[in-house]
Amino acid sequence: MKILSRPQIEQLLSLPPVLQAIEQGFAIYSRGEAVIPPVASLHFDHPPGDCHIKYGYAKNGSYYVVKIASGFSDNPKLGIPAGNGLMLLFSKSTGELLSVLLDEGYLTDIRTAAAGCIAAKYLGPKNVSCVGIVGTGAQSYYQLKLLEFGTTCRSAMIWGRDPVKAGKLKDHPDLKEWQIEVAKDLDVLAAACNLIVTSTSSSKPLLFADQIRPGTHITAVGTDDFGKQELDPQIFAKADRRIVDSRSQCMLFGDTSYAIQQKLIQEEQLVELGEVIANPSLGRQSDTEITVADLTGVAIQDLQIASAVYEQSLGLL
Amino acid sequence: MKILSRPQIEQLLSLPPVLQAIEQGFAIYSRGEAVIPPVASLHFDHPPGDCHIKYGYAKNGSYYVVKIASGFSDNPKLGIPAGNGLMLLFSKSTGELLSVLLDEGYLTDIRTAAAGCIAAKYLGPKNVSCVGIVGTGAQSYYQLKLLEFGTTCRSAMIWGRDPVKAGKLKDHPDLKEWQIEVAKDLDVLAAACNLIVTSTSSSKPLLFADQIRPGTHITAVGTDDFGKQELDPQIFAKADRRIVDSRSQCMLFGDTSYAIQQKLIQEEQLVELGEVIANPSLGRQSDTEITVADLTGVAIQDLQIASAVYEQSLGLL
Repeated sequence: MKILSRPQIEQLLSLPPVLQAIEQGFAIYSRGEAVIPPVASLHFDHPPGDCHIKYGYAKNGSYYVVKIASGFSDNPKLGIPAGNGLMLLFSKSTGELLSVLLDEGYLTDIRTAAAGCIAAKYLGPKNVSCVGIVGTGAQSYYQLKLLEFGTTCRSAMIWGRDPVKAGKLKDHPDLKEWQIEVAKDLDVLAAACNLIVTSTSSSKPLLFADQIRPGTHITAVGTDDFGKQELDPQIFAKADRRIVDSRSQCMLFGDTSYAIQQKLIQEEQLVELGEVIANPSLGRQSDTEITVADLTGVAIQDLQIASAVYEQSLGLL
Repeated sequence: MKILSRPQIEQLLSLPPVLQAIEQGFAIYSRGEAVIPPVASLHFDHPPGDCHIKYGYAKNGSYYVVKIASGFSDNPKLGIPAGNGLMLLFSKSTGELLSVLLDEGYLTDIRTAAAGCIAAKYLGPKNVSCVGIVGTGAQSYYQLKLLEFGTTCRSAMIWGRDPVKAGKLKDHPDLKEWQIEVAKDLDVLAAACNLIVTSTSSSKPLLFADQIRPGTHITAVGTDDFGKQELDPQIFAKADRRIVDSRSQCMLFGDTSYAIQQKLIQEEQLVELGEVIANPSLGRQSDTEITVADLTGVAIQDLQIASAVYEQSLGLL
């Protein structure tokens, strides 16, 4: 049984095979070849926090995964990151624990950003003029970093409520490939960018339908629980294509859920990312379409990244 | 962060404080002071197996627990125990992982047997003539071992489908305090014993109402999932008191659930073990009453035992 620390995991992790594994994972999921029960969760009041347990397996795979991730918004006041977590990989034949991945949330950050990269690859416009990043937390950094694999564009604009944090992200030493500006507001960002990623913990819409220009793709990754929201539901009505990582989960609590509840769109208008991967004609069809991807995070991503790291640690990958 | 192996946990674990912590846990749970969502689970076909995730916290406590336990019935053919598992203890204030308890199912065995011991203490007849153990697996051993804290009786009778396994349990070197006989059938066992524990993986009733004498207490711990069953539902009708570890969970899949579905008893006739602990007058009232305790396993037990081991490892207990 392998116990891997965050530094060991960071050293083992190789992005190209992880991106490939997660892309395959979405396809497996959308073919109905994975068993992924609804997310289990705990909520805390004092101090405020939550814990999500995502778990499941691929029917033809060798493993099952249990991923525990937490978010405690007051942590930064104590000098501790808000997000934390670990992944456990088990043998699907015996139940034996194969690996404890003490990634402290790193693998969740990577697999979430990997989904954003895959969405950009299949749904982004051919010519990305500028990448817009809404949010300034760790996930915003990872989205930009992994977009290096999803677009050739290296111009970006960042907007966040806190201009100091936006400035820090702009000057991040690992984002030197990018030409980054801080946008003074979201109107400026939406006017300049045709590939926009929202990665905030917002509980109300930040980006509105009338801000979105033809040809724009939006990926929203922040709405991973009830009570969160990043996008004006009218964006889903205005969009030509509405992609979800999991139809069932996005109907429940993604940004999609608000558009469905308000009857702006219907379930039949949703296409899963795994369906687009299997059949790219379900994705963007022209440079003028508006596309939106609602990515709430599915255990298949955790399974794929944990398996990849474990197999890499065994020298199998 | 502390990673504890099974041998370390076995060395740290002290039964009297664990029994006390679990007893307090049941009381906390039944006062509605714990947050324990429904069990999350995965089921596997080839080879057959399942994985249960139990998780939760006490509102006034410092921790939350996530316990993962698996059962793969073909494992013994490979020389591996069928049961396995681990517990994770987190800070309820920050989400930080405090301890990984690599107990391989040992703590689940102990906390399950602890519940049996507590049930015997509150519900068993004053004079136990002989303890009857139905089943010969690891849990049967632990039930008998922990009953050393729940009764002064040291006579026991064991019945199992496999007489070889029954013989092995009878001769277990750690059960030397007990005078043990192997019963040739359950009629003999039920006639001789007035404290009976069923701890099998049966999917149909083993013990029937007409076998149960006045004054008998029965604890059933094997029915911890859908599709399992150890007791004739008529036992619940015949009993004077019907105790459950969790009303909601036992209505769902415990032995109780069959009696409820067949309308032999009603929900109002169920009393939680934690309610009996808080108010022992809800327990056995005479030497002739028949009592039955349906113990399906609740995350509060996992929380209490994981907390106790962790605090013991810090030198706090």
